[in-house]
Amino acid sequence: MRGTAYEGAGRLRTVPVDVEPPGPGELQIAVAYCGLCGTDLHIAHGDMDARVSTPLIFGHEASGTVAAVGAGVTGWAVGDPLTVMPLIWDNSCAACLAGHQHICQNLTFVGIDAAGALQQRWTVPASIAVPLPPGLDLRTAALVEPVAVALHDVRRSGLQPGDHAVVLGGGPIGVLIATVARHAGARVLVGEIDPTRRALIASLGLDVLDPENGLAAEVDRRTAGNGADVVFEVSGAAAAARGATALARVRGTIVIVAIHAAAREIDLQRVFWRELRLLGARVYQRSDFERAITLLDEGVIPARQLISGVVALDDTAGALADLSAGRAMKILVDVAGQENHR
Amino acid sequence: MRGTAYEGAGRLRTVPVDVEPPGPGELQIAVAYCGLCGTDLHIAHGDMDARVSTPLIFGHEASGTVAAVGAGVTGWAVGDPLTVMPLIWDNSCAACLAGHQHICQNLTFVGIDAAGALQQRWTVPASIAVPLPPGLDLRTAALVEPVAVALHDVRRSGLQPGDHAVVLGGGPIGVLIATVARHAGARVLVGEIDPTRRALIASLGLDVLDPENGLAAEVDRRTAGNGADVVFEVSGAAAAARGATALARVRGTIVIVAIHAAAREIDLQRVFWRELRLLGARVYQRSDFERAITLLDEGVIPARQLISGVVALDDTAGALADLSAGRAMKILVDVAGQENHR
Ligand SMILES: [Zn+2]
Ligand SMILES: [Zn+2]
Repeated sequence: MRGTAYEGAGRLRTVPVDVEPPGPGELQIAVAYCGLCGTDLHIAHGDMDARVSTPLIFGHEASGTVAAVGAGVTGWAVGDPLTVMPLIWDNSCAACLAGHQHICQNLTFVGIDAAGALQQRWTVPASIAVPLPPGLDLRTAALVEPVAVALHDVRRSGLQPGDHAVVLGGGPIGVLIATVARHAGARVLVGEIDPTRRALIASLGLDVLDPENGLAAEVDRRTAGNGADVVFEVSGAAAAARGATALARVRGTIVIVAIHAAAREIDLQRVFWRELRLLGARVYQRSDFERAITLLDEGVIPARQLISGVVALDDTAGALADLSAGRAMKILVDVAGQENHR
Repeated sequence: MRGTAYEGAGRLRTVPVDVEPPGPGELQIAVAYCGLCGTDLHIAHGDMDARVSTPLIFGHEASGTVAAVGAGVTGWAVGDPLTVMPLIWDNSCAACLAGHQHICQNLTFVGIDAAGALQQRWTVPASIAVPLPPGLDLRTAALVEPVAVALHDVRRSGLQPGDHAVVLGGGPIGVLIATVARHAGARVLVGEIDPTRRALIASLGLDVLDPENGLAAEVDRRTAGNGADVVFEVSGAAAAARGATALARVRGTIVIVAIHAAAREIDLQRVFWRELRLLGARVYQRSDFERAITLLDEGVIPARQLISGVVALDDTAGALADLSAGRAMKILVDVAGQENHR
């Protein structure tokens, strides 16, 4: 069995992986696919060296089937299709005690703080495994995690049917937020700088504009000058953070979804004047994961169009380079090696 | 009759005021006292010249009695004590239609956009007059407006009994927020740079520290390292805005009360990571005004200690200079001229 490990800034290697039987309470997974995301890119670039131990088998957007069932685990059988919600909380910190386990102050994020899904046999606590419906193909199921992010962000925003929503940044999470918001009955406008991404977004039937060219005017036009009910900041760009407050209506909401590497200038005068609300939103809760599976199963999410490509396990580095260069939306790694590539 | 008018940056003058009978729907007020605040300072310095027309009789923290009742006004008689909620909204913009009249997009703030209370006879729409209980002295009643601000800020924060609250900035509004939050059952810590103000705040039985010296450590100590439930940013300082996110617990709330003259650096990474909530809060609603009167009448607000001095109408400029130099907390203008001022 094989896996892809991060060994230090810029260095990935496909390595042999020992397979041991799962311990009590664990499931061993035959991983089918694992999606790559911005966090994986940060790991591969060495940006997260202060947090990760090397070598690290990363990856946290997985689909697969049960390969072996540990002692004491009930409700699972070999061959069952599943995905993994890659969060392990301590159930004892203030966040957990307040019911916000997903932002536990001692959260273990599996795939960052513990071995992830880029290996052909992956053992996890059964408590974080989530069953998939039998009809859902495993490529599509590799999108459950990012769809859960989008669902959490939209739920936290308080978006209502008929609301105007603006999504700043049309990468995978931005497009998923836009899709989920539209499905929730919102009128959605996406701002995305890259023309190739804009073309893809438009092909999904979403309204999209260059944020530097007419976005604010279009928000004004659509809302009679009042501003959007909800603005999702998904780009991570300083200019987007700086401008988000100008797009929101009186008492409107701005959701901070992106990771901002540095402190950003925010127009607090506007926050005050319009009584705006800025909310941070991070990962997901179990209910988001389950709802993500339902939306993918119902075909609400345009999975096929969002998956730019599927690569072999030992092509993970190349896939990350493509993501880094903005040449792709979502790339899956065929961890099991069941497809022919190229 | 006389009033104090702003005539241009740095120029105030006490001028004769013509007295005409109130029109239909209006009340004419014999103003007793008018408090001065930071907004009045901004006006006097010329910072708001783009908004105000000169000459402007300013002032919006008034107490007084009814001097004359206009046609069609019911429920009021000459001599009735009253204060004024200095907001006139258009009842037609998106904010008003959504029930947020206090942040109407075409708000007339009386005392800025229309003639204010620094005159011995002041005529206002009866709709914005608020009756005072007979026993409340008119000095104390001049604090109703700033107390209403504090009540609105605390209400908007969602503060619960037992919560830890931090107030950044111990000027009049900060102290009132701290007092109101304490009365609501919160455990309150005030951060204030000025040692004279710190001494006054401590004398009110409030816990206060220099924000540059141990405030964050004290918040950690009080909350077992978890952070405060609510942080009120009342200082307007860049450093306070920058540091506020570090003081809040997971899912904690930061209320932006101060006017920030420039965009401020905010740690959006922390907002994201802890799923924080930043809320703007501005002015008040009628219910806040009515509750402010009740709290002052019940003696909950330490009005006597907060009033640093009372000056004659033609000493308004001197009072503003004292405020500007940080030599005072709240100064009232004795508009009626009933007291002896050295
Ligand atoms: Zn925890
Ligand atoms: Zn309005």
